[in-house]
Order: sequence, then structure tokens, then C-alpha cells
Amino acid sequence: MIQLPEVIKNAVDALTKLPGVGEKTAFRMVMSMTNWKASELKVVGDSLTNLKDLKLCQDCGMFADEDKCSICADEARAFSRTLCVVENASDLMAIEKSGNFRGVYHILGGVLNPLLGVGPDELRMDELRDRIVQKEIEEVILAINPSVEGDATCSYFKTLLPETIRVERIGFGVPIGGSLEYLDPMTITKALENRKRF
Amino acid sequence: MIQLPEVIKNAVDALTKLPGVGEKTAFRMVMSMTNWKASELKVVGDSLTNLKDLKLCQDCGMFADEDKCSICADEARAFSRTLCVVENASDLMAIEKSGNFRGVYHILGGVLNPLLGVGPDELRMDELRDRIVQKEIEEVILAINPSVEGDATCSYFKTLLPETIRVERIGFGVPIGGSLEYLDPMTITKALENRKRF
Ligand SMILES: [Zn+2]
Ligand SMILES: [Zn+2]
Repeated sequence: MIQLPEVIKNAVDALTKLPGVGEKTAFRMVMSMTNWKASELKVVGDSLTNLKDLKLCQDCGMFADEDKCSICADEARAFSRTLCVVENASDLMAIEKSGNFRGVYHILGGVLNPLLGVGPDELRMDELRDRIVQKEIEEVILAINPSVEGDATCSYFKTLLPETIRVERIGFGVPIGGSLEYLDPMTITKALENRKRF
Repeated sequence: MIQLPEVIKNAVDALTKLPGVGEKTAFRMVMSMTNWKASELKVVGDSLTNLKDLKLCQDCGMFADEDKCSICADEARAFSRTLCVVENASDLMAIEKSGNFRGVYHILGGVLNPLLGVGPDELRMDELRDRIVQKEIEEVILAINPSVEGDATCSYFKTLLPETIRVERIGFGVPIGGSLEYLDPMTITKALENRKRF
């Protein structure tokens, strides 16, 4: 087998750290980049290194250009009494894309997972409770994905809040366009539980 | 739609330049990288930027750590009278992996493609002819992929060489493990043309 230069090996190793990128894919990417100009390589390299400068909203934990994200900085939303709890930024964006929520968010940063050492202190739980009380939030929507850990996180979180606050969890069931045939038994079970009079 | 910070947009834009990476994939990669440490980001960023320092073998055009690649630096191979012409480094490595070729290579850098402005001067054609004469190569194996452009490149290249040099092209046909059922008509045509007495 031919010995490849260190710079190639390093680039391949680095790219395999990206999600969904195996050694073959990384190698193909690097092969393509060997035809790039130095300036093009620098643009990509710097853009990744610069992710270190990413700021988070001091209120909700979303990515932000300033101290607050564009949602928390929006006067029309900042004083909403409805707060939606999400696991991460991608989930927040998915809800925002649906275009039907006009309250504020809070990014938890994951779900409780004792096996992986993720306890309440690893998540932004206390900030969330304080914020809910301070901002006189009346309704909390838990947009936490369904899983054993997600369910436990929701249950634990509810115990932190005064009983006067209405806590709801998003509905689970058959996705629009989904087909029972291809859905897992858990989803079908949830869909049956969540049936509504027709 | 939520406004994302510049650093995220730049990283997504940069990653979409990689082969096989669309906007969604790039976004998912960047989301994952937002959880990385600054030092981890720097390792990846630098490794891509550093591809600019990649050196090419002065003989065959393959990636190299020194002036010559590990194949051209190998005394047992450097004086071989058999030279294999390939389009690019990936093709060279594929042949090398097969483990049955012990001659030297020459990377052409592509194939002739008048529509894309790739003429003989854009490829390493003259270096190749000079090298063949200088090194007293007796046999040239054209491991150029089958395509209209590849075929034209092989024909053109043959006209550059003295007639005393034996020029051959690799065989085309059904790949091992391949099934006629799933192969394209061109491959089947080639396989029929290239049949051998059994
Ligand atoms: Zn915010
Ligand atoms: Zn070489």
C-alpha cells in the first residue's frame, strides 16, 4: 500500500470526526480538496475554526450574533407568557420553521441521562426555572423528543415548577404523510393513546 | 425564519463545497461542531488549510512527502520499463491496492475535454512523453477510464509516442461480483467485444 503524506492523513482523520463521514467519504473529500487553491482551503479551514466564536443567547441559549438571539430580541415575542423547552438548537429551528409558535424558547442542552453522566446540573435546568418564574411564564410547552430519557426529563422538570404553571408536552403520533405500515410500534401505540373523537 | 449567526452560515457555505455535501448535510455537520471545543475546531480547520502544503512527486505527479513519491523513490520500481498512465491519484491508489502492478505511474491530471477547455497543455502530456523516452519505457499501460473523452485521450496520446513503444489499454467488461442484470449496456457491449476463448 502506498504511503500517503501526513497532510492528507491529518485531513482525512479530521473529517471523519464529522457526523455521517466515514473514512472513505473523508478520503473522497480530501482528494477533491487537493485540487483546490490555497485561498479556497483557507476559507473552509478558517470557517470551521471560527465556529469557536459562536455566541449563545443569554436568555434562551440559542445561537446569537449579539447578547440575545433574534427571537429574544423581538419585542413582540420577548414578553410572551408561553415558553417552549427544546433539547437543542436544531429542534428549536424545526419548530420555528413550522411558523406557528410565537412565544419564546429555552434550550436545555440535551436530556437527563444518568448512564452518560448527564444530570440536572449538566442541563440548563436552573436557569430555565428561574427564567420561568421571573418572566411570569404561564404556559410551558415541553418539546422534548419521545424517549425514555426525554420522558424522565419532562417528569423531573415538572417537579421543579410551581403548580400554578401549566405544563404541556407536544403530541406524539403518526406524522403527516406517514404510513402506519412503516412506523415503529411505539409511535403507533402513542397514536392510539392520543386518539381524538372524530 | 430565524436569523443564524454569520459564523454558522460561513461554515455551512464552506462545507457545501465538499463533494456529496448538500446544505442539509453541511448544516447537520455544523450543528454537531457547535458542541466541539475550540481546540478541536482548530485541528480540523488547520488540517484542511494545510492541504495547501501538499507536495507532488516531481516524476509521476503523485502526492509525496519528499521530492519523489514512495513509488518513484523505490529503487526496485524506479527503473521499471513499464509505465501506467492514470487520470488521478485516486485511480493510482486503486491500482496500487490491487497489488499486481510493480512498474511506475504517471498521473495525467484528467482527460482531454475540449468543451471544458482541457487540452493537451492542461494535462501532463509532454512531461509524460519526455519521461517515457528518457526512461526508455518499453510498455505503456493506459489505465484511463472508459468514456468518450477517455477514449479520445488515449488515441491522441498514442500519436505522441514512437511506434516502437508498446501501448496497451486496460480491459473493460463485467466487474468481478457484478451481475449482467444490473450493468449498463456499454459495459455489456465491451464485455462481449472483449470475450476470450474458454
Ligand atoms: Zn434567545
Ligand atoms: Zn512518483
